[in-house]
Amino acid sequence: MPLTAEQEAEIAAARAAPRPTLRATAPGLEAHLYTAHPVLDHGFVRVIDYMGDDAAIVQAARVSYGQGTKHVSNDEGLIRYLMRHWHSTPFEMCEIKLHVKLPVFVARQWIRHRTANVNEYSARYSILDREFYIPAPENLAAQSTVNNQGRGAVLEGAEAARVLETLKADATRAYDHYESMLSQDGQQGLARELARMNLPANVYTQWYWKTDLHNLFHFLRLRADAHAQYEIRVYAETICKLVADWVPLAYGAFADYRLGGAALSARALEALRRMLRGEEVSQESSGLSKREWREFMEILDRSS
Amino acid sequence: MPLTAEQEAEIAAARAAPRPTLRATAPGLEAHLYTAHPVLDHGFVRVIDYMGDDAAIVQAARVSYGQGTKHVSNDEGLIRYLMRHWHSTPFEMCEIKLHVKLPVFVARQWIRHRTANVNEYSARYSILDREFYIPAPENLAAQSTVNNQGRGAVLEGAEAARVLETLKADATRAYDHYESMLSQDGQQGLARELARMNLPANVYTQWYWKTDLHNLFHFLRLRADAHAQYEIRVYAETICKLVADWVPLAYGAFADYRLGGAALSARALEALRRMLRGEEVSQESSGLSKREWREFMEILDRSS
Amino acid sequence: MPLTAEQEAEIAAARAAPRPTLRATAPGLEAHLYTAHPVLDHGFVRVIDYMGDDAAIVQAARVSYGQGTKHVSNDEGLIRYLMRHWHSTPFEMCEIKLHVKLPVFVARQWIRHRTANVNEYSARYSILDREFYIPAPENLAAQSTVNNQGRGAVLEGAEAARVLETLKADATRAYDHYESMLSQDGQQGLARELARMNLPANVYTQWYWKTDLHNLFHFLRLRADAHAQYEIRVYAETICKLVADWVPLAYGAFADYRLGGAALSARALEALRRMLRGEEVSQESSGLSKREWREFMEILDRSS
Amino acid sequence: MPLTAEQEAEIAAARAAPRPTLRATAPGLEAHLYTAHPVLDHGFVRVIDYMGDDAAIVQAARVSYGQGTKHVSNDEGLIRYLMRHWHSTPFEMCEIKLHVKLPVFVARQWIRHRTANVNEYSARYSILDREFYIPAPENLAAQSTVNNQGRGAVLEGAEAARVLETLKADATRAYDHYESMLSQDGQQGLARELARMNLPANVYTQWYWKTDLHNLFHFLRLRADAHAQYEIRVYAETICKLVADWVPLAYGAFADYRLGGAALSARALEALRRMLRGEEVSQESSGLSKREWREFMEILDRSS
Repeated sequence: MPLTAEQEAEIAAARAAPRPTLRATAPGLEAHLYTAHPVLDHGFVRVIDYMGDDAAIVQAARVSYGQGTKHVSNDEGLIRYLMRHWHSTPFEMCEIKLHVKLPVFVARQWIRHRTANVNEYSARYSILDREFYIPAPENLAAQSTVNNQGRGAVLEGAEAARVLETLKADATRAYDHYESMLSQDGQQGLARELARMNLPANVYTQWYWKTDLHNLFHFLRLRADAHAQYEIRVYAETICKLVADWVPLAYGAFADYRLGGAALSARALEALRRMLRGEEVSQESSGLSKREWREFMEILDRSS
Repeated sequence: MPLTAEQEAEIAAARAAPRPTLRATAPGLEAHLYTAHPVLDHGFVRVIDYMGDDAAIVQAARVSYGQGTKHVSNDEGLIRYLMRHWHSTPFEMCEIKLHVKLPVFVARQWIRHRTANVNEYSARYSILDREFYIPAPENLAAQSTVNNQGRGAVLEGAEAARVLETLKADATRAYDHYESMLSQDGQQGLARELARMNLPANVYTQWYWKTDLHNLFHFLRLRADAHAQYEIRVYAETICKLVADWVPLAYGAFADYRLGGAALSARALEALRRMLRGEEVSQESSGLSKREWREFMEILDRSS
Repeated sequence: MPLTAEQEAEIAAARAAPRPTLRATAPGLEAHLYTAHPVLDHGFVRVIDYMGDDAAIVQAARVSYGQGTKHVSNDEGLIRYLMRHWHSTPFEMCEIKLHVKLPVFVARQWIRHRTANVNEYSARYSILDREFYIPAPENLAAQSTVNNQGRGAVLEGAEAARVLETLKADATRAYDHYESMLSQDGQQGLARELARMNLPANVYTQWYWKTDLHNLFHFLRLRADAHAQYEIRVYAETICKLVADWVPLAYGAFADYRLGGAALSARALEALRRMLRGEEVSQESSGLSKREWREFMEILDRSS
Repeated sequence: MPLTAEQEAEIAAARAAPRPTLRATAPGLEAHLYTAHPVLDHGFVRVIDYMGDDAAIVQAARVSYGQGTKHVSNDEGLIRYLMRHWHSTPFEMCEIKLHVKLPVFVARQWIRHRTANVNEYSARYSILDREFYIPAPENLAAQSTVNNQGRGAVLEGAEAARVLETLKADATRAYDHYESMLSQDGQQGLARELARMNLPANVYTQWYWKTDLHNLFHFLRLRADAHAQYEIRVYAETICKLVADWVPLAYGAFADYRLGGAALSARALEALRRMLRGEEVSQESSGLSKREWREFMEILDRSS
């Protein structure tokens, strides 16, 4: 993910000149502004702007004239209460704008979260860079044998080498042909909006992505989850760290109630109550399906 | 709209302490932050926070690393192009958060704009203030005789006096009874979530309202329009002035293309082309309905 | 909620003439179409239209050419899997359109759910009916002493009588004045868009409300909840019954995983695991706050 | 776009069994249900379901108990009024669900319209078909020399042949390698969620896409426009024909006011008024930029 010297200079310039503002500021996030946090082999996440902080959540919940409560402990209690009881609108009062560089197949998952504002680099208008995601060997996984929608063991030996070689060669060739079709050297040159169709889904794109904190938490809950595809999960995990520095109280509540929490069905609750009363409960007697029972057992046993 | 001394003090405190930030700042809007711009008899609009400026629109449109273009004139040209061709996503990259005090019947129109974040003062949880909108005499209008959904001449004489007296007396009585039903002095006291049902639609409520610039422009186009009800239009007009100070280039494009512009149908365009060729075109020969023709004539004749 | 004879006739006419369609139909919901299910003293819920059924959820999840799976049991397993794992998009493929008559203060809560389409009866354009919500004696509750946002014991004796009398008298007077201000008999007549401001929040309004099943479930989870205000909860409960007849498999999954289920935080899960290992866990040793502990105990003890 | 025999049989089965319904039906659209309208070389649009018709728009605008007005001419006048004055909510009361097969690079543009429900065929879960978009010779265009975001003349001769050959060969090779990486024959087999990254953007995907009529019109206005990329425009044009058969009055209003209409800025209106008064107006004296003037002249001259 090497930025060009010009890009580095633009970032340095933006970071060099603090300006006075009367708005709420979050020093923990100011420290990250504009710098590129690397993700995967060529991707990054950069915070471009933000609105609000923990106190702004409290202030909105109270529709107050001032700045939240007098005591941080009160703010924390209220924020945890709001999170616990699904009062989502105060969290919507914080907003963040990110610049993200990511492979197209990750972008296609990401864009499914509709409650966000997006400006993507246009391959109708511009020419994409020669950058492709090639998995690190430890992320080159076989199809899962138990989950149609997941991956299993890491590929080994000759097969791994073959796959890596194929991915690299096909991407390189596709990009060479993209360039040669676009070229106006001795020929008309294919329209950019058509030439892009030759590029594979591991080519990198980039966008500005802006969302509010409530919808960001929803995104992070789904995408920082262990079942999310690795290649989007690493973006979510990077963003989690940024959010923890931005709104530490809200992030703490999110981590406790959502990321680390679990939802139990009415049937599972009933089984649980019987277990707590000392009854022996089996999958059969629980009314849960085998798959539900397995997931239920994982919830009860997993380390925090 | 007199704020309490405590509220004034909170606002003064918030305005007293500028903090350094690396984010984009809009000096024109910083000057307005937190201060209450009066609207109607007890309402106001206060800017609580904002994200982005004109350069941020350009920056997002280009998915750039730096700060828009080198020259303001280039920024303006690009912003006008985006507005003209309905490229709405770059405008979504700016966000504003307002604290608004407004009568409930205005709030009911306002909330129909769904693409915004709202936290309203809760009358389940809290007790509303004794404040009601009573129209100024010059805004006490009769039902329009030509438009089912509009107002006509100003009420005069005894009728005007009667209406004002009725509105005041009913609001006062309703609030007195609200208070007496809530009272726990010698009785149980009705639940706040029930007692509020006795209050009329001109009681004031307040909320935090946050939206992006694209959706704000949509709101302003509909609500700053001459056909909007006066009582919401004055809020829209107040916000227009704030936006002009925040993002002057974008607001200029909006004023030219949307607020001051007009949409013509295919039939109207055809009539127009004939007129420009020197043909005499009448309502009958235009294919437009009488009402469409009247609106068409207004567009062609109205002063800019 | 007596409909007029003309309204009854319109409903009867709409119900009299089945037409052939190739679309998915839900016989359980066809039986309810257009009929008004009474809610509160003058309100109702009427199903105007719907799109899709249980099989349509399966069909969309599979992006299939045909009609879901061969066996209902497979459909149920898939639908429960989708619900359990928060795969919300297949549920968005069903849509329902309701005609609802409801008090304004209920409408103001309801409209906060933004992901829906709404057409409300316009009090700018039309004159509202003389209908107000007056609580039944058993729903006339005092303010809760433990929950700022809730109600406690039922009002009794003279206080109850006083409150009912006040609500009725104020509503009647407000409506009388609304009519007299509107009147064009010997006077100009106040604009409808202004006169409405005199009406209290228990006046009935009505709207067409259309939403997809995923967002409807979200609405029902919050509004059929025991903590929701009674006056909106009865609407949610009426809709629950309609949905159970429309998409029985999806509703069954919703009832099990959402309505009857519970979310546990990471801390609560850790306490639970300790309890299941036979440890004695107290509020203090759990890391939960007193309020969280109380809610946790309620989850573990409540009857299914 | 040859469907398999099994798919054809499923479609035939769905079309063979009309069922009675009390809902609004649109005979013009019933005739299209489930059949695949071909678009591009392998794509299609199929109507899966719909809700509402022209009368439903009128009914919602009036919040009525019955079925719109007595006379179609009244319905048309109201629908045209609603369209002209941007009253969008009644159009939101109609909904349509489509099954679309389309190249990934078209899907990436399409998904930017966020106010819709989508279920896409999952390449994490399933294996994509060997189908790629290869432009017909007459659509193989050079980059525009005047518009960075558009295409110009058709490619000719050897260059055209070269491009077609490249697109076909690269797609074929990419798919061959996709299959061989997935294969579990003598090797572990790469995870599907990874293997898909090797496929180019002209591979076909498919999805269920559901939206309301207001948002569909917005989509069609932008994507059936002459400036839209050809490959998405043909989908929009196909949908236009379906909508014209579904809601002929609403579509007629849309075609007149939006598709065939034009928006003029305040400056353009001022220039127009001067022209109609007989003044000679030039680009310089109009206050319009060169580009705006050119677009303005196109609006005034273009044939209807």
